[in-house]
Amino acid sequence: MKGSLAVVGIGPGEKRLLTPMGRRVLLQATIVMGYRGYLDQIASLLTKKEVVPFLIGQELERAEKALALASHGQRVALVSSGDAGIYGMASPVLELWLHLPTEQRPSLEIVPGVPAMVACAALLGAPLGNDFAVVSLSDLLTPWEVISRRVEAAAQADFVVVLYNPRSSRRPWQLAEARRLLLRYRPPTTPVGVVRKAYRPGQAVTVTTLGELDERAVDMETTVIVGSSVTWARNGHMVTPRGYRLEALP
Amino acid sequence: MKGSLAVVGIGPGEKRLLTPMGRRVLLQATIVMGYRGYLDQIASLLTKKEVVPFLIGQELERAEKALALASHGQRVALVSSGDAGIYGMASPVLELWLHLPTEQRPSLEIVPGVPAMVACAALLGAPLGNDFAVVSLSDLLTPWEVISRRVEAAAQADFVVVLYNPRSSRRPWQLAEARRLLLRYRPPTTPVGVVRKAYRPGQAVTVTTLGELDERAVDMETTVIVGSSVTWARNGHMVTPRGYRLEALP
Repeated sequence: MKGSLAVVGIGPGEKRLLTPMGRRVLLQATIVMGYRGYLDQIASLLTKKEVVPFLIGQELERAEKALALASHGQRVALVSSGDAGIYGMASPVLELWLHLPTEQRPSLEIVPGVPAMVACAALLGAPLGNDFAVVSLSDLLTPWEVISRRVEAAAQADFVVVLYNPRSSRRPWQLAEARRLLLRYRPPTTPVGVVRKAYRPGQAVTVTTLGELDERAVDMETTVIVGSSVTWARNGHMVTPRGYRLEALP
Repeated sequence: MKGSLAVVGIGPGEKRLLTPMGRRVLLQATIVMGYRGYLDQIASLLTKKEVVPFLIGQELERAEKALALASHGQRVALVSSGDAGIYGMASPVLELWLHLPTEQRPSLEIVPGVPAMVACAALLGAPLGNDFAVVSLSDLLTPWEVISRRVEAAAQADFVVVLYNPRSSRRPWQLAEARRLLLRYRPPTTPVGVVRKAYRPGQAVTVTTLGELDERAVDMETTVIVGSSVTWARNGHMVTPRGYRLEALP
């Protein structure tokens, strides 16, 4: 008997930003799997369930295990923080699922969530109000030359740039290098939003500039949003205009 | 007496994708404003409230009116579809709010929501599994030369490309032009996801290719997601790998 697998984005970590659809899938699951830290955030929804925690780095193992259990009749929920489709578990799960013969596939649902960048943007104001590019600075799975080409292209074409996985103890230099690339095309006064632990205990929201960005304050729980040429900041808020002509107002 | 203004993303239009935080803000508001079509989607939450519907195109008027009512003591909720920060009302509201003298500002909160692109991506599978760029093809507020430069830069740097506002009766040619720019850098076999009315009555999800994309099927209620060089499609699903080496699996 085949079961089902739901890949669920739980949002930034505040339960009021977990969608009712995601909540329901979690409550109906027989097994809930995911990175230990994310499972802790939703512990109150997981009583009387089999909970399978994993370590960071075990993404493929998680996807395989979840598919195997679902194939054997379980109702499995696999959680990601933010949205599962954005640097989350949806992609490796779907790759493995599509490689299975059709008759061996359990039913699969991807449940959308509030992405980290959206939560961070809301705390900053409206930095994503116009076109933007999203780049992960982790070169564990993508070569740095590909990443740096994307950062440079985004800078050159005047996108707001969202940097995921900006800095860790194993990857201390990539953020400084991305900043250097951005400074080729944008002035040091360009607003930069730095949000750590959005909507979680210990939340820290900072608006600084490309020239003054202190990389040491950035870690893996931080998202960095670099403004475009028209982004402006005031009173700790960042806004990228959509292009309405405010000066035309009465 | 000053009141409060909350700018709320209601998600793609399915109530199970409206966050509890957004729902609560709507229930506590004395006045709810927004584009008429969005208010219709959440009508059941708006009984016994003052509801102020607007037409498309009246974004600045909406922002001004909402701020004025909040300044006069009302608890106002202003809704956007998807996330209010992504081509939504957060940006014009914040621009006007930051221009007010500090003592005249009502309290302001931006409530994050599930963006259209995230809802569409979940229905397609996992097309946003790696770096992506988001571009609105509407040249009503942004010059076409800026938009086309961004589409071309995103194509060149191998981003997945999300196209918002891809086509309308007033703007029939921009999508074809964007497709032409993308075809300079990507083969006609590149997977393209076309999602209309995600999570709403009349939902339509299609996976096609850059070569075979039928622009006439695309309107303002559609989001188009163009794969990168590594995006692949099978059985009506699209996936952009994160880079895990599946071939290394047992």
